[in-house]
Amino acid sequence: MRYKKTMESIKINVMQKLLKANDAIADEIRKSLKKKGVFFVNLMSSPGSGKTTLIEETARKLGKKIKVIEGDIQTTLDAERLQKLGVPAYQINTGPFGGDCHLEAAWIKTAIDELGMDDLEILFVENIGNLVCPAEFDVGAHLNVLLISVTEGEDKPLKYPLAFQVSKLCVITKMDLLPLKHYSLAKLRQNIKKVNPACAVIEVSAHDNVGLESWFEILKHKPGLL
Amino acid sequence: MRYKKTMESIKINVMQKLLKANDAIADEIRKSLKKKGVFFVNLMSSPGSGKTTLIEETARKLGKKIKVIEGDIQTTLDAERLQKLGVPAYQINTGPFGGDCHLEAAWIKTAIDELGMDDLEILFVENIGNLVCPAEFDVGAHLNVLLISVTEGEDKPLKYPLAFQVSKLCVITKMDLLPLKHYSLAKLRQNIKKVNPACAVIEVSAHDNVGLESWFEILKHKPGLL
Repeated sequence: MRYKKTMESIKINVMQKLLKANDAIADEIRKSLKKKGVFFVNLMSSPGSGKTTLIEETARKLGKKIKVIEGDIQTTLDAERLQKLGVPAYQINTGPFGGDCHLEAAWIKTAIDELGMDDLEILFVENIGNLVCPAEFDVGAHLNVLLISVTEGEDKPLKYPLAFQVSKLCVITKMDLLPLKHYSLAKLRQNIKKVNPACAVIEVSAHDNVGLESWFEILKHKPGLL
Repeated sequence: MRYKKTMESIKINVMQKLLKANDAIADEIRKSLKKKGVFFVNLMSSPGSGKTTLIEETARKLGKKIKVIEGDIQTTLDAERLQKLGVPAYQINTGPFGGDCHLEAAWIKTAIDELGMDDLEILFVENIGNLVCPAEFDVGAHLNVLLISVTEGEDKPLKYPLAFQVSKLCVITKMDLLPLKHYSLAKLRQNIKKVNPACAVIEVSAHDNVGLESWFEILKHKPGLL
């Protein structure tokens, strides 16, 4: 890619200002939730890696101690799935605003105000399914979590390094599909460590109820908050 | 999402100008390749849906009649996979330019000039793995193809409608994983038709060599070119 127009540099300048404004709001959110003792977890992944399913399992375990902010371009399908389990969920749809491919801290702030954070243990954000853009926008979480399903292929950490680098925990999902042998778990783990040596990695299969105890253990320890 | 800052509207204005400039270059590419009789196919999908694998299978069938422009934020892994099969491939890495989440027509134009289009039957672009942003940027293809693997879930067309709406063909991949029963093919097809009734749908499994004949048949007919 050797060709870059002037317009491109204008876009980059505007983006830098946007990111700076975003980071200030994100820091404010992080501090204010820490004061209230609310652990804020931001889930990122490709579309269909299992973010909503992981939150559903967490809701079954932790019940009313959690609330969720759902990010989607369109539909309220995920918020509806969670509301069925009695979890208060706030849906952000970016569709009417140009189909934004990520969530920004300012929108999270509004959602937090509307949901209310009293008597709460964990706030989840389910970011828009996208391995690129959400990683560029700090939403103010204490813990960024990257989900990747075994079917996505071992090379993804190398191809989308930023999403793995801003995350302290990587959850490998759909482990029940691994025995199909098209995928190498060892290589996937190796590639995660290559782009982010400090990243913790756990393996889960919501369908087989495997590995979820490690996930609940991490939530109990609240890394980044305590 | 009720909160929008002034900065946001600036970003949207710049984006509108960028998109207009992009569309003009895309039209130019489409016409110039039509004149040369080169069929230009743009593959879009989430990360890990099987774009490179589909191109590999196509290369095995069509040999030197194809060339490929590979889009990735980082790495030349996909271009290397294709070069192993003797396919001329040009890698665009958006990483050095802020990790852009899509390909733009201007970059495609440069790649086309460098690859050379003489004595060629089909030019493929493998877009960046992302169901959101690539759909917003016309790259000048005669046919946009959306790949979705059965493991991504049936709700994706509803949640990422634009990518399905700009595509005339949807390829459902990894059909070998369907018998695992977590997914409903009928619902996925229904949701594709809901957001784009005119979209043709085929089902493939590269691992089992299933459905590829339909894919080759479509390539032979060159929809959008002839």
